[in-house]
Amino acid sequence: MAGKKRILSGMRPTGPLHLGNLHGALSNWIDMQDKYDCFFFIADWHALTSNYEDTANIPDYINNMIIDWLSAGLSPEKSTMFVQSHIKEHAELFLLLSMITPVPWLERNPTYKDQIIQMSNKDLSTFGFLGYPVLQAADIIIYKADGVPVGVDQVPHVEITREIARRFNYLYGNVFPEPEAILTKESKILGLDRRKMSKSYDNAVYMSDSPDIISSKVSKMITDPGRKLKSDPGNPEICNVFAFHKLYSAQDLVDEIDEQCRKAEIGCVQCKKKMGVNLVKFLEPITEKRAYYESKPKLVKEIILEGGNKARKTACQTMDDVRKAIKI
Amino acid sequence: MAGKKRILSGMRPTGPLHLGNLHGALSNWIDMQDKYDCFFFIADWHALTSNYEDTANIPDYINNMIIDWLSAGLSPEKSTMFVQSHIKEHAELFLLLSMITPVPWLERNPTYKDQIIQMSNKDLSTFGFLGYPVLQAADIIIYKADGVPVGVDQVPHVEITREIARRFNYLYGNVFPEPEAILTKESKILGLDRRKMSKSYDNAVYMSDSPDIISSKVSKMITDPGRKLKSDPGNPEICNVFAFHKLYSAQDLVDEIDEQCRKAEIGCVQCKKKMGVNLVKFLEPITEKRAYYESKPKLVKEIILEGGNKARKTACQTMDDVRKAIKI
Repeated sequence: MAGKKRILSGMRPTGPLHLGNLHGALSNWIDMQDKYDCFFFIADWHALTSNYEDTANIPDYINNMIIDWLSAGLSPEKSTMFVQSHIKEHAELFLLLSMITPVPWLERNPTYKDQIIQMSNKDLSTFGFLGYPVLQAADIIIYKADGVPVGVDQVPHVEITREIARRFNYLYGNVFPEPEAILTKESKILGLDRRKMSKSYDNAVYMSDSPDIISSKVSKMITDPGRKLKSDPGNPEICNVFAFHKLYSAQDLVDEIDEQCRKAEIGCVQCKKKMGVNLVKFLEPITEKRAYYESKPKLVKEIILEGGNKARKTACQTMDDVRKAIKI
Repeated sequence: MAGKKRILSGMRPTGPLHLGNLHGALSNWIDMQDKYDCFFFIADWHALTSNYEDTANIPDYINNMIIDWLSAGLSPEKSTMFVQSHIKEHAELFLLLSMITPVPWLERNPTYKDQIIQMSNKDLSTFGFLGYPVLQAADIIIYKADGVPVGVDQVPHVEITREIARRFNYLYGNVFPEPEAILTKESKILGLDRRKMSKSYDNAVYMSDSPDIISSKVSKMITDPGRKLKSDPGNPEICNVFAFHKLYSAQDLVDEIDEQCRKAEIGCVQCKKKMGVNLVKFLEPITEKRAYYESKPKLVKEIILEGGNKARKTACQTMDDVRKAIKI
């Protein structure tokens, strides 16, 4: 690992990962494994910020998430994968950082009020929800991460982390590097209904969906809304199924479909079937790996424990520095 | 300990303890040692809420505080004495409770805005300062304390702890008893200048003051402000030195002073000297014990470590219950 810059990123265990997650964060992570010293964690404490009233599924979600990660190609030999709540030091650093973080920095957080409005069915005005950028800062700087791979909408969060690290260093001496936001490509894949793919919109294809479920979901996809009859020529440019073809079908087929659709030589049902077959094929290696890891629960547990031990070692070293600096 | 109710209380290590602390909280704690299973802790993380910018003295303050406690009569055989930051589980429970504590509960806290105004020379609007009742709740309920000895002004804090415990039990099942506020007598002793005795007013006599310093401080005490000359009769009822006599001198002398003062038969200088001698005498056993513990730094360290081990065992048991309940 020597010489490699360290990055850190995490996901909240709120359900199975879908194609949007796979083509977004997860594929970026996989690409980064060789270039960086990677720390990836399952942010179960963060899941409480919005889901504190319903925690029953969190253990299953954690287990499935690590299997999603491994199936997609994260490698325990290359990356350190762990569960946030296994590293109690995050909580200690969260507490210490909370003492030096001005409340206005948190209230100014652009996603704070947004999320409260968006999730108006849940009571989110908790102290923990207000403070989740502080916990996030602790998560990142406890590993002295150099960078955090994020989408553009999360750049302000990394900025708060940098401000908190800077304030700590100013008050107690130089302990933390200021992590850089590493802008990553975001997935352009849409959900079955052409909205953003999201668990909460019920429009997602999950990495763990069976071929049957995938066929069934694909068959319900919205195509070119202007094409009423099979004999109407379609416009692939605005067809979501065609966008999927571009991701999962060979270029020859993509070109063929493009032409046939415009000439009304292929119907949407048949077009979807072809795409569904290729999507299933694309997922096959992932599905195989999933079956492997699902049959080896002990191995999965071991990967998480070992990752946790490695993470804890680093976190404890940092906390030694922190305690020396604060003198507590 | 079986059958005894458990109480918990703590002090922030912000400096040496004075006579106000001794006759207030500390003497109450000493009285409670036989009746209750007592947990007393040095709240060093809490000291950061107001002192995060100046932590250099905290290690010394902690060491001196435990010596103050032992000198005054807290017994490691009877009570569990420990340092908050040695028990990392407080931080974990603080984090978990933060997820279920509504921000308005904290903003409503009567002392929150008071303190911000009173300490306007410090920047207190930190996330940690807003959340100190959450940390306090964690401190208390992690030991499943039945009661918290407090002065009347701190009753609202115990009420927030009860609310947080109740909310946790409602969401995740019955883990925590709701601690009762145990109202304790408060010290009526005033500072040298007749204001409340307080380190920040620079008007305190410390438990660790030497006889010389005590004489010097006593000689500067304000007496009956109406008594200008030694030949003027004084009014002991409004004389602060007389209030001290009532605490530290035998009843015979108190009666004698009362009479002599009213008749102008004794001057303030002489009266103060008599009182100072008795105050020094009162503190003698404390001073002796202090000298003993100061000469045994290893023993003091051991007491704190053993207390910490005992506290940690209880805290860890509670956290097992908590994690099972939350499923994280």
